[in-house]
Amino acid sequence: MSNKSSPSLNTSTEQAPLPASFLAALADIFTAAELLTAPADCWTYGYDNSRRHVLPQAVAFATSHEQVVATVLACNQFNIPLTARGRGTGTTGATVPLQGGLVLSLERMNQVLEFSPDNRYIRVQPGITNQQVQDIVKAHGFFWPPDPTSAAFCSIGGNLAYNSAGPKAVKYGTPRENTLGLRAVTGAGKDLRVGVFTSKGVVGYDLTRLIIGSEGTLAIITEATLKLTPLPEATKTLRAVYQDVFAAAKAVAAIMAQPVVPCALEFIDGNAINMIRQYSTCDLPENAGAILMIEVDGQREGLDSAAQKVADSAKNDGLLDIRVAQTREEVQALWQTRKALSPALRKVAPKKINEDVVVPVTEIPTLIAGLDELSKQYQLPIINFGHAGNGNIHVNLLLNPDDPEQSARAHQCLDEVFSLVLKLNGTLSGEHGVGLEKRDFVDRELDANSLELMRAIKRQFDPKGILNAGKMLPLG
Amino acid sequence: MSNKSSPSLNTSTEQAPLPASFLAALADIFTAAELLTAPADCWTYGYDNSRRHVLPQAVAFATSHEQVVATVLACNQFNIPLTARGRGTGTTGATVPLQGGLVLSLERMNQVLEFSPDNRYIRVQPGITNQQVQDIVKAHGFFWPPDPTSAAFCSIGGNLAYNSAGPKAVKYGTPRENTLGLRAVTGAGKDLRVGVFTSKGVVGYDLTRLIIGSEGTLAIITEATLKLTPLPEATKTLRAVYQDVFAAAKAVAAIMAQPVVPCALEFIDGNAINMIRQYSTCDLPENAGAILMIEVDGQREGLDSAAQKVADSAKNDGLLDIRVAQTREEVQALWQTRKALSPALRKVAPKKINEDVVVPVTEIPTLIAGLDELSKQYQLPIINFGHAGNGNIHVNLLLNPDDPEQSARAHQCLDEVFSLVLKLNGTLSGEHGVGLEKRDFVDRELDANSLELMRAIKRQFDPKGILNAGKMLPLG
Repeated sequence: MSNKSSPSLNTSTEQAPLPASFLAALADIFTAAELLTAPADCWTYGYDNSRRHVLPQAVAFATSHEQVVATVLACNQFNIPLTARGRGTGTTGATVPLQGGLVLSLERMNQVLEFSPDNRYIRVQPGITNQQVQDIVKAHGFFWPPDPTSAAFCSIGGNLAYNSAGPKAVKYGTPRENTLGLRAVTGAGKDLRVGVFTSKGVVGYDLTRLIIGSEGTLAIITEATLKLTPLPEATKTLRAVYQDVFAAAKAVAAIMAQPVVPCALEFIDGNAINMIRQYSTCDLPENAGAILMIEVDGQREGLDSAAQKVADSAKNDGLLDIRVAQTREEVQALWQTRKALSPALRKVAPKKINEDVVVPVTEIPTLIAGLDELSKQYQLPIINFGHAGNGNIHVNLLLNPDDPEQSARAHQCLDEVFSLVLKLNGTLSGEHGVGLEKRDFVDRELDANSLELMRAIKRQFDPKGILNAGKMLPLG
Repeated sequence: MSNKSSPSLNTSTEQAPLPASFLAALADIFTAAELLTAPADCWTYGYDNSRRHVLPQAVAFATSHEQVVATVLACNQFNIPLTARGRGTGTTGATVPLQGGLVLSLERMNQVLEFSPDNRYIRVQPGITNQQVQDIVKAHGFFWPPDPTSAAFCSIGGNLAYNSAGPKAVKYGTPRENTLGLRAVTGAGKDLRVGVFTSKGVVGYDLTRLIIGSEGTLAIITEATLKLTPLPEATKTLRAVYQDVFAAAKAVAAIMAQPVVPCALEFIDGNAINMIRQYSTCDLPENAGAILMIEVDGQREGLDSAAQKVADSAKNDGLLDIRVAQTREEVQALWQTRKALSPALRKVAPKKINEDVVVPVTEIPTLIAGLDELSKQYQLPIINFGHAGNGNIHVNLLLNPDDPEQSARAHQCLDEVFSLVLKLNGTLSGEHGVGLEKRDFVDRELDANSLELMRAIKRQFDPKGILNAGKMLPLG
């Protein structure tokens, strides 16, 4: 949820000052240019894209694995909370330094260590951005499938910490399916090399995937071996317009039940369409109640018929219009409605709660119907869009920033949204993660035994609990 | 390694008899038809395909999750070693009940709990065979990608326990990439539901993949939600013959560097070809030094040109012959040489050590050259074949069963094989797992910190250490 203006969190002004001996230890590890301690300098490192803020007491910029080890050891010695951070594009407050202490920024640890096109991997430091990796490997005919919307800015380390995906996950998977191995430093300051340099490997427990998605609570990733996928020769874009969301959801299930797996299967609901109509020209039929944006990729030969198969499966009684783009201009035109969504959202509601729940694709209609009812019950506009092929729906509750009563209602509504999602065999987050925003809802999804094991694992990796304290797992 | 005739293991005759009160507890959980205690009845449940044997003191056949919970609690109460078992097709001794105690067979827990084609998953009990799952989902146009050679007999539970894959892993991944969630019982008898019913989910640590590949040492899987993939419309088979293994390995790297990912990329070396020549007719050129068997699948339209692209990338100076099968008969003819391999192997060497090491594909030539040298040095024939697209090579050391001195030499040779693999950034096992066979080599691949964490995780899941004791992790 965005735009938390006054989080009820500790701020560093309430923290004891950092011990001089700890600061001296940091000064041994980092150059003056790699260390910030003045509050004004540290300020921006207290935010992430959740717009929550807690001022860190110091910020260090690592450029090497050894610096990370030394930092974690120093934080252990002096019991200093340590929050690792990439580019701060996360939306859940996961990199907000809840207890003050040290923020370790990895943005300068951004080198390519090894690129092996023949072995289909690239080994990188965590601070490199997703886009930088894509640009490098593209030149050799590859891509790394995870494609969060923030790809141009977000770091690979962040992608791995939150198992961040994007539209392409429907065909190509998330970071957990696209990472071979890691180097990392545990909360105890211990050096780990986990995983392999090959596309198979079954020796020992899978610590690679345990660390991926652990939101910086177990270990700090200092190196990642990313599995690369060959770029498809071509992509075809389709747009299908439906009279209502139920027809669109039915089409999603039908598309996912036939052999051609789209590389994007995105959904926009009627409320979103109505909002877009107010702020931009819109080439949609009057009675459009939902849109699917579909992309199919692969070998050029046969792609037209693959797109046709998807188009055929997308047809049902509620289909109003379906178009397959034939030119680059048509592709842009078809995406225009989707692209108008974010600016329109900002205009309508500068304050919103944006969730990323997931349900099995056949449950999308029930989810949307339930959200409609909740919208009426709580008198809150709800706009839905997202990665329908994965059942990953971004549920946006629009708020009036000048109405504090509405904000309380929104949180009650959200509570019911989560209950609905879990009743439908869904999960509370598909790609944004837990951080602070969903921490207190996690025990509704996970059973007590699983949580107990997760807490035990956390203690094994991070016995003093210094790594990203108070995040992800509900407070015990 | 197969044909261990006299394992230096404890046998159950050395074990204290099972307490009467434990047996009474079992009799409360299981019907008489679900419980074996006579040694002659228990005998066959002491083996797996490693041909090691330790007699279990009792064998129980669970049909429900609740029985598994009750069994684990009883084993905890009475400190009885507990080895879960599927169909016993594993090759590493992982289901051999090293310390006697109870073998819990899950072969009768073989029901489909839910099949949801529209959501692309099937929820099954662990005792169902891989082939049974394939047959059920095929009728709806799907398959489950993991395809071990033993698919007709091996259980899904076993596939998950060892993260077993097969040829298709090169395109479609292993069980870790093809499983959404699990239900399981920890070594402490605690009920777990981990993972999701959707293709995305990032709430909590990834216990699903931690349990997959843990060889029954952390928890007993009682239910699995398998992610299904649409069946391709068609498959094309190619066979490329090279003058030597180096030319073939170069082709593997070239094939993996272009956009069409084969669904099988199998390799046979010159020693294997020579052996096949002795026992069957062979349509290969005289000077054939290596073969690649390649399959490409996908939409029918465009598949010929996809196969052509692969064929083009397979060409190099060392290529002697390449054929693309045009008919079903030609497909069978091309596979004939590969299929003649196993019977020929059995004739040449009824005793062999079969390893499944993995190296980055570009290191295959160096691996094969190194194996050649070791073969000469230790005067042992070595035959190599396997899943080249993953760099997963089955290294077979052929032994004369009447020569005990040779067996000692073989183990020394094996030691050097593992050192070579690790030097090449490889891993000791791609799909067979560790079990007993590689347990004592694991600490060469994994660092001490990783092992320490794995042991700590083991203690958290299984505080009394009753689950598959003495397997997978080196004895501390």
